[in-house]
Amino acid sequence: DPGGQKPVRERAVVAAADLISAHGLAAATLERVADGAQCSVHSLYAAFGGRDGLLHAVYERYSPILDVEAVLAAPREDLQETIRTLYRLLTEALVREPRVVPAMFADALARPDDPAVQGVFRHAFSRMVEGVGTWFTGEIAAGRIRDLPPLLLVQQMLGPLASHFLMRPAAAHLSVTDLPSHEEAVELFADNFLRAVGTRPPAS
Amino acid sequence: DPGGQKPVRERAVVAAADLISAHGLAAATLERVADGAQCSVHSLYAAFGGRDGLLHAVYERYSPILDVEAVLAAPREDLQETIRTLYRLLTEALVREPRVVPAMFADALARPDDPAVQGVFRHAFSRMVEGVGTWFTGEIAAGRIRDLPPLLLVQQMLGPLASHFLMRPAAAHLSVTDLPSHEEAVELFADNFLRAVGTRPPAS
Repeated sequence: DPGGQKPVRERAVVAAADLISAHGLAAATLERVADGAQCSVHSLYAAFGGRDGLLHAVYERYSPILDVEAVLAAPREDLQETIRTLYRLLTEALVREPRVVPAMFADALARPDDPAVQGVFRHAFSRMVEGVGTWFTGEIAAGRIRDLPPLLLVQQMLGPLASHFLMRPAAAHLSVTDLPSHEEAVELFADNFLRAVGTRPPAS
Repeated sequence: DPGGQKPVRERAVVAAADLISAHGLAAATLERVADGAQCSVHSLYAAFGGRDGLLHAVYERYSPILDVEAVLAAPREDLQETIRTLYRLLTEALVREPRVVPAMFADALARPDDPAVQGVFRHAFSRMVEGVGTWFTGEIAAGRIRDLPPLLLVQQMLGPLASHFLMRPAAAHLSVTDLPSHEEAVELFADNFLRAVGTRPPAS
């Protein structure tokens, strides 16, 4: 690469993430990403095979999927500590800039019938649901989690923490309450999750 | 009103809801709402006092806030049945057309720094959090719910159900799992909520 620039692949993922964070998935066209990354559309095809490949690379970088999959592939440890670790990874993905994960949720809510949104979200969503769901199936078999449908266990796990951190910017303006620290929220929701679906009460 | 049309107020609320559902809050300008409602911008000022008043009217109509407040104001009944009733109201608001509540969440996620989004969301969000939070404070005092911060109780209550119904259109494409009926999801998440934060195990 000329002038000491980072490789096209790296620049394109960052440019696409910035566009998605600011304007949503629809804004991340190959033309606009090429503009932002100071490269040609042709080089994006060469690096990613097309727009879908680029969007998957953005998702892998800015969602917690790779870290989550590493935690789930490790030997099974204390269940409460594993849930807390997953919650910390999710928290980081929800609060960091650029806001790729919140923007993806926003797109899925606002334009559920848009084929591009469906494609990315289905890929991202099904990979997370299947990874975590399969891990839950093992926890159920080991007798640590009640035998509930894996999809609903995933939503039970992600829902409270996600709604807390996604709505935290708005909640910061409320007078009713002091916001807990990130770690306090992680511990409280992890404790609640195990009370809700665990077979044994969590150690508090 | 000429020609048997519904009153301006009614037509404007419906037109604004359709715009928000299709294109988000930013699309619901007084000019476009007047267009959709076949009335003048002047008559919108007369009916609502301005854009904020119109948006609050849309929120009152399409969010479950009025029904939720009626439930919370009634004499306290069986806790599990009350949670199920609140969940049924929320489910209805999340799945019905026009998709005003999902669009509001999408706007809050995508544009948290936009003043118009902040204004509406803060109004809507704080009214719901304060209403349900105050009710939780009574349940805590009565010894039925553990003494946790009201804001986090609200998120623990709404998160799993909201993530289930907001993501249901995308989840319908997954091969991993059969989706439960609406009522099965309501009962399972209500049961989980009471296991998580109740002082007594729910009757199953």
